[in-house]
Amino acid sequence: MVIRIGLGQINSIVGGMDENVEKILRYVEEAEENNVQLLVFPELSICGYPPEDLVLRLDFLQANVRAVERLAQSTTQKDLVLIVGFVDFKDDVYNAAAIIHRGRIKAVYRKSILPNYGVFDEFRYFARGHKPLVLNVDGIRIGLTICEDIWVPEGPMSAEVIGGSANLIINISASPFETGKPRVREEMVGVRARDYRVPVVYTNLVGGQDELVFDGHSFVVDHTGKVISRARGFEEDLLIVDLHLEEAVLAKLHEPRRRQVEGTQECEIVDIEGALKPPEDLIKTRVEPLKDDLDWTLEALILAVKDYVRKNGFQKVVLGLSGGIDSSLTASIATLALGPENVKGVLMPSRYTSKESIDDALALGKNLGIQTLTIPIEKAFQAFLETLEEIFKDLPHDTTEENLQARIRGNILMALSNKFGWLVLVPGNKSEMSVGYATLYGDMAGGFAVIKDIYKTDVYKLANLVNRRFPKPVIPERVFKKPPTAELRPGQTDQEKLPPYEILDDILRMYIDEDKPIDFIVNEGYDRDLVKSVIKMVKNSEYKRRQAAPGVKVSPRAFGKERRLPITNHYDPE
Amino acid sequence: MVIRIGLGQINSIVGGMDENVEKILRYVEEAEENNVQLLVFPELSICGYPPEDLVLRLDFLQANVRAVERLAQSTTQKDLVLIVGFVDFKDDVYNAAAIIHRGRIKAVYRKSILPNYGVFDEFRYFARGHKPLVLNVDGIRIGLTICEDIWVPEGPMSAEVIGGSANLIINISASPFETGKPRVREEMVGVRARDYRVPVVYTNLVGGQDELVFDGHSFVVDHTGKVISRARGFEEDLLIVDLHLEEAVLAKLHEPRRRQVEGTQECEIVDIEGALKPPEDLIKTRVEPLKDDLDWTLEALILAVKDYVRKNGFQKVVLGLSGGIDSSLTASIATLALGPENVKGVLMPSRYTSKESIDDALALGKNLGIQTLTIPIEKAFQAFLETLEEIFKDLPHDTTEENLQARIRGNILMALSNKFGWLVLVPGNKSEMSVGYATLYGDMAGGFAVIKDIYKTDVYKLANLVNRRFPKPVIPERVFKKPPTAELRPGQTDQEKLPPYEILDDILRMYIDEDKPIDFIVNEGYDRDLVKSVIKMVKNSEYKRRQAAPGVKVSPRAFGKERRLPITNHYDPE
Repeated sequence: MVIRIGLGQINSIVGGMDENVEKILRYVEEAEENNVQLLVFPELSICGYPPEDLVLRLDFLQANVRAVERLAQSTTQKDLVLIVGFVDFKDDVYNAAAIIHRGRIKAVYRKSILPNYGVFDEFRYFARGHKPLVLNVDGIRIGLTICEDIWVPEGPMSAEVIGGSANLIINISASPFETGKPRVREEMVGVRARDYRVPVVYTNLVGGQDELVFDGHSFVVDHTGKVISRARGFEEDLLIVDLHLEEAVLAKLHEPRRRQVEGTQECEIVDIEGALKPPEDLIKTRVEPLKDDLDWTLEALILAVKDYVRKNGFQKVVLGLSGGIDSSLTASIATLALGPENVKGVLMPSRYTSKESIDDALALGKNLGIQTLTIPIEKAFQAFLETLEEIFKDLPHDTTEENLQARIRGNILMALSNKFGWLVLVPGNKSEMSVGYATLYGDMAGGFAVIKDIYKTDVYKLANLVNRRFPKPVIPERVFKKPPTAELRPGQTDQEKLPPYEILDDILRMYIDEDKPIDFIVNEGYDRDLVKSVIKMVKNSEYKRRQAAPGVKVSPRAFGKERRLPITNHYDPE
Repeated sequence: MVIRIGLGQINSIVGGMDENVEKILRYVEEAEENNVQLLVFPELSICGYPPEDLVLRLDFLQANVRAVERLAQSTTQKDLVLIVGFVDFKDDVYNAAAIIHRGRIKAVYRKSILPNYGVFDEFRYFARGHKPLVLNVDGIRIGLTICEDIWVPEGPMSAEVIGGSANLIINISASPFETGKPRVREEMVGVRARDYRVPVVYTNLVGGQDELVFDGHSFVVDHTGKVISRARGFEEDLLIVDLHLEEAVLAKLHEPRRRQVEGTQECEIVDIEGALKPPEDLIKTRVEPLKDDLDWTLEALILAVKDYVRKNGFQKVVLGLSGGIDSSLTASIATLALGPENVKGVLMPSRYTSKESIDDALALGKNLGIQTLTIPIEKAFQAFLETLEEIFKDLPHDTTEENLQARIRGNILMALSNKFGWLVLVPGNKSEMSVGYATLYGDMAGGFAVIKDIYKTDVYKLANLVNRRFPKPVIPERVFKKPPTAELRPGQTDQEKLPPYEILDDILRMYIDEDKPIDFIVNEGYDRDLVKSVIKMVKNSEYKRRQAAPGVKVSPRAFGKERRLPITNHYDPE
């Protein structure tokens, strides 16, 4: 009783039904060459995830259904059983899996548990399925689940194992990356496997989609919850595993706790015959290694940049190089993602720019092997000052003049983007985005904010990590050591307006990522007035974040669709 | 059997629990002076609507519960029964109504039907209530519903009338304005009233909250579905009505269709005694007139601007005056909302600006009585051209140079905002926002986009209407007649790149507001290639809209949180 399963960890694209079907067919070919009997693709692999409001359009739903039918028709000669995610559209609209065999859609399983929190809005789009499903493939009984279905103990898995006698559970997922998530998934699925003494095949999406990046890391656990097979992280992969079910089935039958639950839960059974020809010789599967959190985060950022740029039809990117740590890290990530020939660094010195900054920026550019341009902003700055002279009269210089400079830089980068078709990358970090220490339409200008979800203290850690990804360090040592500054007036440093980043980030992490109340944060040793002033800055910069470029979610609470706060808001926590 | 009911149509503010309670108490005073026996406030009147992710914070939930308790304590000496909306937070989190009498919270009703479409995300925040509630106030039986509860026939109203013998239904709402909505509400509620032969008291929120504007228009229908009382639109109001229930009760008992439904639906009954002392002389209620759709739209925009500016702590606004219809309309609306002393118009002529444009802008400013400033952009434009000369070499001028000018203007407006604390208003219309005919960080720069949801053809209609709101027309005749142009190069007009606005808007309305497929639009008489090219422009400018300022929803499908599309999107409808 052996079944050879393929996990088709693909990078599907939202709305690209034709491309996705073609990709799936290429995986089918490769799987067939390897005698795979059951080939599983991620959640909504046909139309990409998340399709958002495209699902509200009739023509989109129809195009997605036609794509599944076309996929089925293209596999009439295939013995293997295919499982693909699509939007089922009949009496209602469902997040579903189609089970395809020899050119026919043999069954459709509809997701039962719909996530509607964080970045997820599935109640907006889908009706709930209410029918657990077990495939009886030549005697092997396979239960279906989709993503969130397996995250709650009350999901369909129980009915499938107890009511439907499933000996194996499939989960197709589109689970976005965040720090630590790959481990959490394996732990949770491991417990579910042990609960019912069944192996679980977990196939995840890979690839960047706007704010989200899916990390792949598909895996298989045996009936004891042990990971016996794991796909690569942050790239496409076809993972093949031979699952031996005898031992698992016996273990399930002998599991005494299982008998405490009544075996009457309703479950649909669909028979598929003639799919399994036992493979002649067994193969050894792969268990790709797990990495440290920070390594994963870096991989996530690289893949997110690559996919955002490529999927949106761009070749090259441009960003301002200030000689500071944020733009240095962003440029390095872009270079790792796209290659040095596709990254343009622009130095835009002003009267306040230090020689060190210019040297560091040029050194970075040289180390990365990217083209750098130097475009001084002095002439434009002077022109603005003269233009506004009469109206500003004798009023003292203030943030107005600082923002002017930042916006001149934004304008120059956008002009380069317009003229040469380069996508502008935004180098702002999460600490700045949190407290609004950034200029709207200035340093915030651009199409994609790479490190928007990385606190400043982590920026340094990532920069260190990045340096080790090149033959020799690319970010100059001095960049790590000099005090952070926007260089928008003489002698400026970030710490004039902000507490030290170690303190700021700790407070922000508790307040934003963990929703902690002020009392809790104060109890951690921070001054109440300081905490309140930080929280006030966060609230008062909501309007800036609303107009910020999208960036990559890597934390448990990213700015963007995961954090939806009103701009007009009179609430101040006490 | 008469009950005097007050509808407290207040403008509550999100997160402003103290302010909201104070306001409610002022209404309680006024209602008491008028011998009101039951005083009803809108949905979530304690914490404002929609509180969005504030509801995910423990301290917010607690502050909101404390506010209800404080409100109760402040009314221990009051005979009237109060109904206020708040977030109930016990075993779970609910969108709820507190029924308060003589200082005690006598009952809590929890919303049963949660909207999770369009601009609504209530499944993200709230658990569903499952207990219909009828108050027995000295023998008068009053059923409770919250907003969406009454929009579905399966809501709690049925159980309250049939199971709970309710003779009167209360609905507390936060129903955002869109064109035609006030009439739709009254029709729907009228049918519900007739279905069960009970009067319905519908109390709606009023006021602007970011993208939403609540229009008020609270009303009461009798048991035949006829509107017998209506509050004002777009302003606060205390509407008082004496409801005679004898006839309604008899009509209900004699309604034969009611007897087709089993009267066993479960319903909680809460007794409140000593609240009703019959009023000595009856009062005549008001039925404020309904207006035409366009008048309502204008009122919506005016209130939205006023509330966004004031609730966010601004006094004055600034915007660029191009002499075109969009900025003329926006400036006029701002003047109606804030008064001429609080509106600053900035002319920013370039080498391409015509004398007519300057004259028209100045005439508008003079007619509105607002201060105008003239700040030529030539010097800054020249400086940018020189700064970029070496890099752009002999490349021909293109949209790059056009965008440069728009962004210089954006930079100037933001500088004025920074220096003087004026909020920048964005004058872009929905046609431009749809097809991306606008410059990111240029004419799109600013805090609030007043006419973002108004198609260009409607801009003209609204401009005509606005002209009639002033003693004499403020927008010069010529502005209506000259061809629209951005004046970013010699002889430019919008129609070089876009189809005529009558055609464009018709296509956009079908595609965006109504989700029509291409075949349908072609069938309406438009060329397929033209339709496809328009749709392509809509898709390709998603990235711009993602960074656009919030604006006022007045259509059935506004950009912003109502329309959530991926930027990375390979779907092109066929």
